[in-house]
This record gives sequence, C-alpha cells and structure tokens, in this order.
Amino acid sequence: MPDYSGLRINRQRLWESIMSMAEIGPGEAGGSRRLALTDEDKQGRDLFIKWCTEEDCKITIDDMGNIFARRNGKDNKLPPICSGSHLDTQPHGGKFDGIFGVLSALEVIRTLNENNIETNAPLEIVNWTNEEGSRFAPAMIASGVFAGLFEKKHAYSITDSEGLSLEQELNRIHYMGTEICGDHPMGALLEAHIEQGPILEREHDQVGIVIGGQGQRWFDVNLMGQDSHAGSTPMAGRRDALVAAAALIQLVQEIALSKAPFGVGTVGEMKVVPSSRNTIPGEVFLTVEFRHPDDSILLTMANEFIQFCEHTSSKTDVKIKPVEIWHNPPVRFDEMCIDAVDRAAQSLGYKNQKMISGAGHDAIQVSRKVPSAMIFVPCEAGLSHNESENAKPEDLEAGCNVLLHAMLDLAKNHE
Amino acid sequence: MPDYSGLRINRQRLWESIMSMAEIGPGEAGGSRRLALTDEDKQGRDLFIKWCTEEDCKITIDDMGNIFARRNGKDNKLPPICSGSHLDTQPHGGKFDGIFGVLSALEVIRTLNENNIETNAPLEIVNWTNEEGSRFAPAMIASGVFAGLFEKKHAYSITDSEGLSLEQELNRIHYMGTEICGDHPMGALLEAHIEQGPILEREHDQVGIVIGGQGQRWFDVNLMGQDSHAGSTPMAGRRDALVAAAALIQLVQEIALSKAPFGVGTVGEMKVVPSSRNTIPGEVFLTVEFRHPDDSILLTMANEFIQFCEHTSSKTDVKIKPVEIWHNPPVRFDEMCIDAVDRAAQSLGYKNQKMISGAGHDAIQVSRKVPSAMIFVPCEAGLSHNESENAKPEDLEAGCNVLLHAMLDLAKNHE
Repeated sequence: MPDYSGLRINRQRLWESIMSMAEIGPGEAGGSRRLALTDEDKQGRDLFIKWCTEEDCKITIDDMGNIFARRNGKDNKLPPICSGSHLDTQPHGGKFDGIFGVLSALEVIRTLNENNIETNAPLEIVNWTNEEGSRFAPAMIASGVFAGLFEKKHAYSITDSEGLSLEQELNRIHYMGTEICGDHPMGALLEAHIEQGPILEREHDQVGIVIGGQGQRWFDVNLMGQDSHAGSTPMAGRRDALVAAAALIQLVQEIALSKAPFGVGTVGEMKVVPSSRNTIPGEVFLTVEFRHPDDSILLTMANEFIQFCEHTSSKTDVKIKPVEIWHNPPVRFDEMCIDAVDRAAQSLGYKNQKMISGAGHDAIQVSRKVPSAMIFVPCEAGLSHNESENAKPEDLEAGCNVLLHAMLDLAKNHE
Repeated sequence: MPDYSGLRINRQRLWESIMSMAEIGPGEAGGSRRLALTDEDKQGRDLFIKWCTEEDCKITIDDMGNIFARRNGKDNKLPPICSGSHLDTQPHGGKFDGIFGVLSALEVIRTLNENNIETNAPLEIVNWTNEEGSRFAPAMIASGVFAGLFEKKHAYSITDSEGLSLEQELNRIHYMGTEICGDHPMGALLEAHIEQGPILEREHDQVGIVIGGQGQRWFDVNLMGQDSHAGSTPMAGRRDALVAAAALIQLVQEIALSKAPFGVGTVGEMKVVPSSRNTIPGEVFLTVEFRHPDDSILLTMANEFIQFCEHTSSKTDVKIKPVEIWHNPPVRFDEMCIDAVDRAAQSLGYKNQKMISGAGHDAIQVSRKVPSAMIFVPCEAGLSHNESENAKPEDLEAGCNVLLHAMLDLAKNHE
C-alpha cells in the first residue's frame, strides 16, 4: 500500500477557484447572488462542469438537476465515495456557504490527478440543487428528494415569488437530467462546509469533525389576553399578552441554558396586536424552536415549555396555545465516515473538535440513506447568510486536506 | 334661596337622546362611526344644535368648530358655567364615549327648563372638535388650541389619511365659526364621561369624582444585538435583542407594580427584526409609557427604567437606547370644581370615590386655563374604543344628576 500521508491540496488553487465562482452573480457588498435555477446559477453550474471536464470527470445529471462528476477508480463496481455541497446562494449570500464544499471536492480530484493517484473506489463530486431554499422553499429540497424525504412531484410544483415552478426553471436552464433522482449509487458522502457558527473560531480549532445534526421541535404560539387602555386600566386585572410573552421568552432561554452547551432555544418571529403605543396588547403570536442532538432531551425541553404554557393558561387570564408544527429527529452520522474524518484530522495534526451541526445541510438529508459525515472549518465571527461572510485560506486548506485524506481512506486507499 | 335638592334629571330622556345620536353613523356591531368633520359628524352636530335651539339656547361656533350652546342666567356678565365633551367617535367607537358628556349637559338644561329654574350665572353646553384624534392626530386638538397648548395654524394644517386638512374639512361641513378659539369666556368646565377603565365597576361605585389626570412619560426604545443562526449559535455568546426586550418588558411591569395602584407602565408597540423563525432577532423596537398622578414619582419611574437600559447596555452585548419623546405633567383639577362635584355626589347619596383619570380628556386640556373637574360613571368591563362599549342607564342617570347639582352649585344657586 503506497504512503500518501505527505499529500496536500493546493491552497492557492482552491482559493482562486472560490474567488472565480464568486464573480458569477456578484453581490453588492462582496458576496454573491446566485439563486437556484436562475441564469447566474446556470453560469455557476456551467463553470463547475467545465472545471470537472478538464479533470476528465464524467458528468451525470439527475431529474432534480443534481450534478455528479465522476473520477473512476480501480474497481468501478464499487459505489463511489462522494463529496460536495451546493453552488446556489442566499439573495445576499457569501462566497463560501456551499461553494467551499463543492470546490474542495474538486480540489481533491485535482490534487489526485496531478499526483497520478488512482483510488480503489471511484470518487465523485456532487452539486445539490436549491440547497438554500431562498427561491424555492423549503431548503435542501433536491437532497431531500434524493434521500426520499420529499416527493419529486411536490418538489417540481414549488413556485418562486413570480409563480415560476422549479420544474419549469430546471428545464429552462437545461439542467433537467435523465437519471432518476435517488437512483445514483453512492457509497458514502462527505460534505465540507463553513461552520456558520462561532464555536471553532472562539476555541481556536481549525477543523470540526461533525458527528451529527441537532433534532428540532418547532412551535407556533398564540397568546390571548385583552386589549385595553394603557392609561385607565390599573396594573391589577390587566390581561397583557405581551407581559405573558416576555415570561415565555425568558422561559425558552432558561430551558435552553439548562441544556447547554448543546441545547438551544429561540423565539425568532413575533407579532404584537394591536401594537399601539397606548393600548395594552391583547394578542401576541410568536414562534419557538428548540434544538438538541439527543431526541429524549429535546422532548424534555419541549415538555417543560408546554407545561409552562398550560400552567400559565390555567393560573392567569392570558391563554397560551402552543402548537408543535415540526419535529425533526436528530441525525447521527455514520461511524465509519466520522472515523475517516477523525483519523484524517488527527494524522494531519489540525487542532479539532467533534461537534454537532446546528444548521441543516444536504449531507444531513442524505445521511438518512447513505453513510455520511461532515467537516467544518471556522468562519469569521460565525457570520453566514450575509455578504460579509468570510473564511481564512489556511482554514479552508485544512478542511480540504482533511477531506482529501478521509476520501482516500473511504475509497480503501489506506495510508 | 330656593331648595333644589329634590331636583332630578330624566333618565329615559337622557338614554333616548344617546340612542338617537348613535343612529347617526351607525357602526357594524352596535356602536357608532362619526369621525371628526365627516358628513356623519356634521349630522351629529346639526342634531345637537337642533336640540339646543329647541331649549332656547344661543349657539356660538369658534374657528376650531367648537360649539357653545348658552342658556342665560340672572347675571349674564358672569362667565358661564360650562359642561360638555365631544360627539366625534373612534372608527369602531361606542355610543357613550364623549356623547354622554355632551348630552348629559343638554339633559341638565332640559331639566332646568321644564322646572323653570333660573340660574345666577349662565350655563353652556360645549361640543369640542376632534377629541378622538382618529382622523386628525393628535387627539383633543381643539380643546388643546382653546387652552393654548397647540397653535391654531398647526391644527389647521393637520391632514387625514387622504390628505384633506382639518381647516378644509371644517369649511366643507360649514363649522368654521367666527369667534376666535380660546376667546370664549368660561367660568368653569365640568365634563361627565364613562370611566373607560374597570375601577368603578369592580368596586361597585356609581360615581367617580375625578380630581386630576395622570402625568405621562413616553419613550421610543431601540435594542440592537446581532442576527444569527438559531441552530448554529450556542446560547453563550448570543446577542439576542428579543431576550433583552423580554427583561425590559418585565422591568416596566415591576416598576409600575411598585407604584400601584396609581402607577401604570405599558409596552404597547413592538417590532422584531428580522422576525424569522430560525434567526436570533438582532433588533427590536418598542414603546414604553409610564403614568402617575404625582410628577416626582413619575420621574422616579422613568429614571429607574433609564438606569436599567444604561446598565444592560454597559453589561451585555445588546445596546438599549431609550429616547423620551413626551412628558405630559399631571393635572390637578380645580378644588372649587372638585368640591362642587363631591358635594353633589354626597348629597345625592351615590356610592362614589375620588379618582384619577387614566385617559386624556378635553377637560384635562382646558383645565390648564379654566377651573375644571370631571365626573366618571362605570362602563361595562371598563371597555371603550370598541363598538361593544356599554353603560347602565341608572349609572348615566347618577352621573347626570351629579352634574346637575354641581352646575347649580357653581352657578351660585346654592341649595
């Protein structure tokens, strides 16, 4: 068995590819705007395919527009070891979210090509359609169809704000492939991504070995009190829905803090009615979400919250009605894939930690069907979905080197 | 001196007048819609003048559209003892707010006329223009101009949502009078009104002897944190503006409770940015108001609030900027007027209490210039500015009888 332990990707080439991709659909503040299935997305896809073809990869496109670029191995009956992410962006997106994942997989292939290294299993680069969900909601729709989480018919029917359907737009930009989405063989999937959170940067780690995704429970909550005059209604006897909402916001905070560091809880959306300066608010609508990597702890968090709502409703004149609208169980990534990433990070000597993904990703969807794991790298101040999103070339390099060695490992080219 | 102690108003006649007025600009749910200076307001004014003329009153209209209906006394060099309120309503207004005050004054005149009682000083009924402020903001604009609190030129320039000015509309409905607003002589002003709060009903009192109005301090408050991803941002290090806002809402509640029963504090308006289910809110705008009848206690309340904002801004990563946009000092009504109302309520044997007006009223504006006081009667559940607003005929009768005897008293017709 040859020793590839000294092999490294090319930091400069990786960085330049990311910067070149960012020029397509440039943002106004240094980021990018390549909404899914727009002309800009098509240009990004075309450039990606051009680069892959230059590396002698064979392109397959499925009927959700997902692109697979294959580099054959010695034993092409083996399912390919895949890596990738997405090239579409938020309306005011950054240069790295998704793009780093696709282009780090390309950089792995380039590195193997220039070193004439043949892997045992074939390798593939993947670009998933419409990860962001900004144009066609929900997010991660194509990896979701691939994993069997959504019906393709439903995905096709989703329309953007102008009424154009995903199916129409796939056809319009000529990315409606012939392979049936979900049929593509896949031995494993690794996804490299910026963290989109502050943990790695804060703890001075270069690499996150992502062992799974948080479970989520989402609630819609209505609080019903009574509007009344802010001047002539004494404090005693008020039915102030906003005061009740304030207690609820603090409760969500306390529940999450009690399950730190993995538990989080957020009131994100809120509407106050009538929202008049001198009227006691009679109604409040708000959303609550809890996340935790352990489903039983997540349930405990949700139950504490529901009990508080019931208790307040029975004890006071403000009625609180929480409705759970979504339960997304936690994902635990595949041990073989986690181990491959872990071994690569350790052997390369990068300061690292095992962590949970707070956000959703294509690999989390696909992990329900294919052995998967993820590699995180720090991003500046944890900022993402923002044109100011930034990452250091040396951190991207580290993540890409981990990806290289983890892929070699999974492709049975043990070092 | 004749003994008028047995004199009483006519409950049925008062009630029927209120019900007749409510038929002009009928609401959809049992209330009224007579926005200031609309055709409906004109019809209401015309009916009022018709009724006053039938009682031999002499009508004067000033150049803010305020109407004065005079019943001469023995000594017409004395300034008139006045009573009234407003006939305009909220868009979804009730039948009693304002109307009871105008028509109870009319009922006093009718009662005196049918009993051939001549007062020493002349009496007058007043209808103030645009008390509600729903069409032309702010509220109580015409009584404010009368009292010298607003410039007439400014009042004229105020436009409604369609761009029509108050001056235009006064001319259009032919209620631009020739007398200069503020010049009308006035010896005293009493205003009867529904309480628009729950205190009298809760404490089973029929009459409130209003000794003054609360002072108010209003704030605009901006809270600035940082938007971030609700999944990938751990609890530690979040800059959640909504969690800070929740603490602030509870503080306002605590400050007000510590100054109960007279102190009140309310967060009425609130806006959360970006208000997205899975984004930690980075910005919140909210309004805070404090009210108290004692200006020094009101200042203490405001200072506690400002100190909390400063403390939080310096201690945490959420910056809170409160801006005081209005300070309206408390009003203490005239002792002579309060005593006249008090004596009337006691001698008539109505269960009563001295109280502070939580809401603003024309008499509170005018009290800065003319000796004034108010009489409150209970309204159902304290509900007002709502078509369901309701009051009992016997309570309106009680308030009107108190008004009758207090006016006789002030007109130097001592019983």
